[in-house]
Amino acid sequence: MILTNRSQLRRLPARGSHDFESLRKILDAGFVAHVGFQAHGQPFVIPTLYGRDNDKLYLHGSAASRMLGELATGVPACITVTLVDGLVLARSAFHHSMNYRSAVVFGTAQKIVDPDQKEQALRVISEHLLAGRWNEVRGPSERELKATTVLEFSIEEASAKIRQGPPLDDEEDYDLPVWAGILPLKLEAKKPEPDSRLVQGIEVPQYVAQSRHG
Amino acid sequence: MILTNRSQLRRLPARGSHDFESLRKILDAGFVAHVGFQAHGQPFVIPTLYGRDNDKLYLHGSAASRMLGELATGVPACITVTLVDGLVLARSAFHHSMNYRSAVVFGTAQKIVDPDQKEQALRVISEHLLAGRWNEVRGPSERELKATTVLEFSIEEASAKIRQGPPLDDEEDYDLPVWAGILPLKLEAKKPEPDSRLVQGIEVPQYVAQSRHG
Repeated sequence: MILTNRSQLRRLPARGSHDFESLRKILDAGFVAHVGFQAHGQPFVIPTLYGRDNDKLYLHGSAASRMLGELATGVPACITVTLVDGLVLARSAFHHSMNYRSAVVFGTAQKIVDPDQKEQALRVISEHLLAGRWNEVRGPSERELKATTVLEFSIEEASAKIRQGPPLDDEEDYDLPVWAGILPLKLEAKKPEPDSRLVQGIEVPQYVAQSRHG
Repeated sequence: MILTNRSQLRRLPARGSHDFESLRKILDAGFVAHVGFQAHGQPFVIPTLYGRDNDKLYLHGSAASRMLGELATGVPACITVTLVDGLVLARSAFHHSMNYRSAVVFGTAQKIVDPDQKEQALRVISEHLLAGRWNEVRGPSERELKATTVLEFSIEEASAKIRQGPPLDDEEDYDLPVWAGILPLKLEAKKPEPDSRLVQGIEVPQYVAQSRHG
């Protein structure tokens, strides 16, 4: 049960290249990142939403967030996005694995101070999460913008790893009378649940019912 | 769109306590962890499978794994497990959020050298991933055990965070004609895909068809 390591760390591939495309697809398919940084000798890994614009990632949160405060000092950081595609069930315990796609990106963050840039980055995060939502909701007030920290994260190095396909067993194990194959896994949207205080007569918008989350 | 922070870092709560139960439930519901550690001044966040036995977590991988090698030196590490439950769609951009459960655990790893203990830890990881599988497959050979590194991770501090329930809007926004509510998300198993080289007549086992992955 080893996660196959198909690629090594490398300088960020040029935009438009095959490698950059692999990375971009993973970052665009996910929406939760695990952000790693070290503070006072202790590593932290914190889940957070993100958005992408070219080779920039955007993170946001409360201005009181410890994570964002640490990252804003420019410490080296690692942002990892993992998509789980299935369990790989081999005939031997040893060859069990997981089908997945992951993007591991390294770089440093910078705090966005200009309010217009800040709002634009928040729009990128929002549209990444649920395209169509931003234009329908009440936008951020000046006070809300002030209460929000937004970081721009420059991707400096990155690695994409993909494991897909059937189990790969030792040749002599293929005769074993053991079921083998893939148990596919998918993160999927269920039926939207309207808020109990919804104004009467408002239907679920199409961009919610038919979002990329399926 | 802020991930609500409902609890702070604390010493590992006593087993059997409410807090330990929250943590345990999250660790038992997930199966992919994001492991964070620092090496040569650079933080890394790597996805991996895990298993839990009381207040120990087990990680495994190739004996050549750089991550496991670094962790085995006893550097401080952070293991985070995140379960995504839904998008929280509020009437204002600011109050958007995500429903999720996450466990962030801090501690250090120790390499398991005894082959029996190693095999037992691998069984814990395997049964955590898919209960019932271990007894059906060919167990690890001596050579395979040697090629596998298994780490025992003592949870020293931990934090559980849970955001659930409907969006919480500003009182004056509830009259806005905007759809609000939850878009539930769930990682679910699909129809098992048999390997093309399966021995004829082998049906999908019940523990695969009716696994906890649903």
